[in-house]
Amino acid sequence: MEKRIYNFSAGPAILPEEVLLEAQKEFFSYKGSGMCIMEMSHRGKIFDQVIKEADADLRKLLNIGDNYSILFLQGGATLQFSMVPLNLMPPKNKADYIITGAWAKKAAKEAKRVGAVNVAASTESENFVRIPKQSELKLDPDASYIHFTSNNTIYGTEWRNEPEVGNVPLVCDASSDFLHKMIDINKYGLIYAGAQKNIGPSGVVVVVVRKDLLERSSDSLHTYMNYKIHVENDSMYNTPSTFGIYISGLVFKWLLNMGGLDVMYKRNVEKANILYNAIDASGGFYKGTTVPEDRSLMNVTYVLPNEDLTKKFIEEAKKKGFDGLKGHRSVGGIRASIYNAFPKKGVEDLVTFMEDFKKNN
Amino acid sequence: MEKRIYNFSAGPAILPEEVLLEAQKEFFSYKGSGMCIMEMSHRGKIFDQVIKEADADLRKLLNIGDNYSILFLQGGATLQFSMVPLNLMPPKNKADYIITGAWAKKAAKEAKRVGAVNVAASTESENFVRIPKQSELKLDPDASYIHFTSNNTIYGTEWRNEPEVGNVPLVCDASSDFLHKMIDINKYGLIYAGAQKNIGPSGVVVVVVRKDLLERSSDSLHTYMNYKIHVENDSMYNTPSTFGIYISGLVFKWLLNMGGLDVMYKRNVEKANILYNAIDASGGFYKGTTVPEDRSLMNVTYVLPNEDLTKKFIEEAKKKGFDGLKGHRSVGGIRASIYNAFPKKGVEDLVTFMEDFKKNN
Repeated sequence: MEKRIYNFSAGPAILPEEVLLEAQKEFFSYKGSGMCIMEMSHRGKIFDQVIKEADADLRKLLNIGDNYSILFLQGGATLQFSMVPLNLMPPKNKADYIITGAWAKKAAKEAKRVGAVNVAASTESENFVRIPKQSELKLDPDASYIHFTSNNTIYGTEWRNEPEVGNVPLVCDASSDFLHKMIDINKYGLIYAGAQKNIGPSGVVVVVVRKDLLERSSDSLHTYMNYKIHVENDSMYNTPSTFGIYISGLVFKWLLNMGGLDVMYKRNVEKANILYNAIDASGGFYKGTTVPEDRSLMNVTYVLPNEDLTKKFIEEAKKKGFDGLKGHRSVGGIRASIYNAFPKKGVEDLVTFMEDFKKNN
Repeated sequence: MEKRIYNFSAGPAILPEEVLLEAQKEFFSYKGSGMCIMEMSHRGKIFDQVIKEADADLRKLLNIGDNYSILFLQGGATLQFSMVPLNLMPPKNKADYIITGAWAKKAAKEAKRVGAVNVAASTESENFVRIPKQSELKLDPDASYIHFTSNNTIYGTEWRNEPEVGNVPLVCDASSDFLHKMIDINKYGLIYAGAQKNIGPSGVVVVVVRKDLLERSSDSLHTYMNYKIHVENDSMYNTPSTFGIYISGLVFKWLLNMGGLDVMYKRNVEKANILYNAIDASGGFYKGTTVPEDRSLMNVTYVLPNEDLTKKFIEEAKKKGFDGLKGHRSVGGIRASIYNAFPKKGVEDLVTFMEDFKKNN
C-alpha cells in the first residue's frame, strides 16, 4: 500500500482510508456495472440506490425522523449563508445571529441582504477566543430563526451544547463538526454542513431541514435557491454532485461500521485530550489560543513563543510527514485539525514531535 | 482490465477511459503526496497547480484570451440560469431568449424573476424539432444580452453556427456540446456548461465570461451569485469542487493529447454520420425526430414504429451492453448520446445491433 501522510488540513480534509480504498477499487467499474459512478445517470437505478442509502444511513446515524428532509446540494456553506435567510426569514424578515468567528460573520452578512439581523451575541472584541454564555444571548422571541456556528474552524472554539432558544427555530452551520458526536436533531430547525471536513469531498453540502419550515419558501425564489423545490425532487431537481454524494455515503457507512456517533465522540475526545494535555504540560512553550472550556475537539489551535519558532515548527513537521499544521492566516500559530477520520496514532506522533521540538529549541 | 459497457447516457455521461485509469491509479496518493486529491486544501500548492493547469489547458483548447475569465463553479447550469440574469441583466433589465427546448425554457423562467424576457424566437409549437433560422429572430438591439442553448439534449437539435447578434453580448448554455468542436470564443459574452456531459463529473459548471461584462455585477448580489467575486478570487472565494475540477483538468489534457478540438470535431462528425446514415437507410424502420439540417452531433434521437418495439429495443440493447438509450420521458423513443469520450466502435456496434434488430422484428 502506498505511503500516506498525516493530513491536518482544516478542509478539504482527511478521509477514512477504508473509504478511499473502496472507492479506488470500484472506480473504473462500479460493482461490475461497467461504468464509473461518475459516468452514471443520476436518474438511473444504481445512483438512485446510492443516494437513498446515503439518506437512510444519515438518518440512522443522527436518529433523524420523518419530520425532517435531508438534502445534498452544491455551493457549500457559502450558498447556504444565502439560502437560509432567503427561505426562512420571511415573512417577519428578521433573525438572530450569534457571532463566534469569521464564518458566522459571513453568514450574517448574507442575511442582511434579506432582512434585519440582530446580533444576539458576539465575542469579536475578545478575538473570538470563547463561545458566549447563555446568559449573554440577547434573543428576540419573535425572530424567524436563530443562527449559530457550532464549531469555529479558524479560532478553535466549539459549542458544548446548543444555545437554548425556546420555540424559535434553531439554525446551525455545522460544517466543521457535523457527525463528530450524537446530537438531538429535534433541537434544530435546520442544520447544514459543507462536506469537506467531516463528511466527504468538497462540492457537497448537507442540509437537514424540519419539514414545517418549508412552508416559508416562496415560489418567487430562484429555483436553485428554493429548499422546497429541492425537497420535492429529492435533491435531484438538477444533477447533483453524484460522486461527492457517493463518497459521503461511504463515509456514513464507515461511521455506522465504527459503531456510530457515540463511539466516534469518545474517540474524538480521546484524540483532542492527548493534544490539549501535551499543550498544557509544555510549561508555556505551547499555548492554547482559546479559553479551555470552549476548546474545539476538531481544530486544536495553539501558538509557540515566537514567529521564528512557529515557522521552524511547521517546516520540520512537514519534513516528518505532518501536513497542514499552519494556522489560518488571520490567527497565525498552529492549527491541528483532527476530524473523525484522523487517526489517534497521528495525534500521538504529533505530540512526540512537539516534545522533541521543545527539547531542541 | 475490467469490462466496460457502452454508456449512451445523456449525462452524467461517459468519460475517457484514459482519464478514469489515471485518476484511479493516483486516487489513494496523488503523485506520491500521501493524500487523495479530495483530501487536500484547495489553497495548497498541489491543488493550486491543478486548477491553474485546468484554466491554462482550457484556454489552449478554445484559444481563450486574457480578456476572458474562466470560472469553475457549483450548482450546475441550473444555478447559471439565475446567475446570468442577476449579473448581466442590469441596468437595462431586459434580455432576449431563444427558446429551442426544455432547458432554454428553464433559463428564461429564471430570467423573468430578474427582468423582462423577450422571446426572440421559439420552435415550441413544432415540438422543438428544429433550430430557428436567423431571419426568424426578433432581436432587441437594446437587450442586455441574447441567450441561446447551443445543443438541445432532449430534442436532439444543435446550432450549426451561433446566431448573429451584432453588438449585443451573446450568452450560451453549452452544457451538452461544450468542447465538441472549435468555436470563436470572441463571439461570446459568456458561455457556460455543466461539466457532466463533455467535461467531467457533475458538480462542476464552467463559465467563460468576457471581463468587461463583470462591471454589471452589483455589490448587492448574494456573494455566491456574484461573478465578479468569483473572478477576483480565481474560483476560490469558497471551497470549489476540487475533485471535479481535477477530473475536468484531466479531460482537458486528454483533448489536447488527442490533437485538440478540430480533431475531436472530425471524430464527432464521423460518429454521428455512422448513426444518422443507419437511421436514414433503415427504410423508415428508424426515424430521426428532428429536421436533418439541425441534427445534433451529441444526442442522436430517433423512434421505432411503435411503443412495444421501442421497449423491446431498449431491453435487448441493454442485455448486449448498450446502456442509457431510452429517450427522455418528454419525447420517448431512443436517444443515443455520443459525447467526445464515446468511442467510434460503440457507435458501429450499435448500428450492427440496429440492423439485426430490424431484421428480426
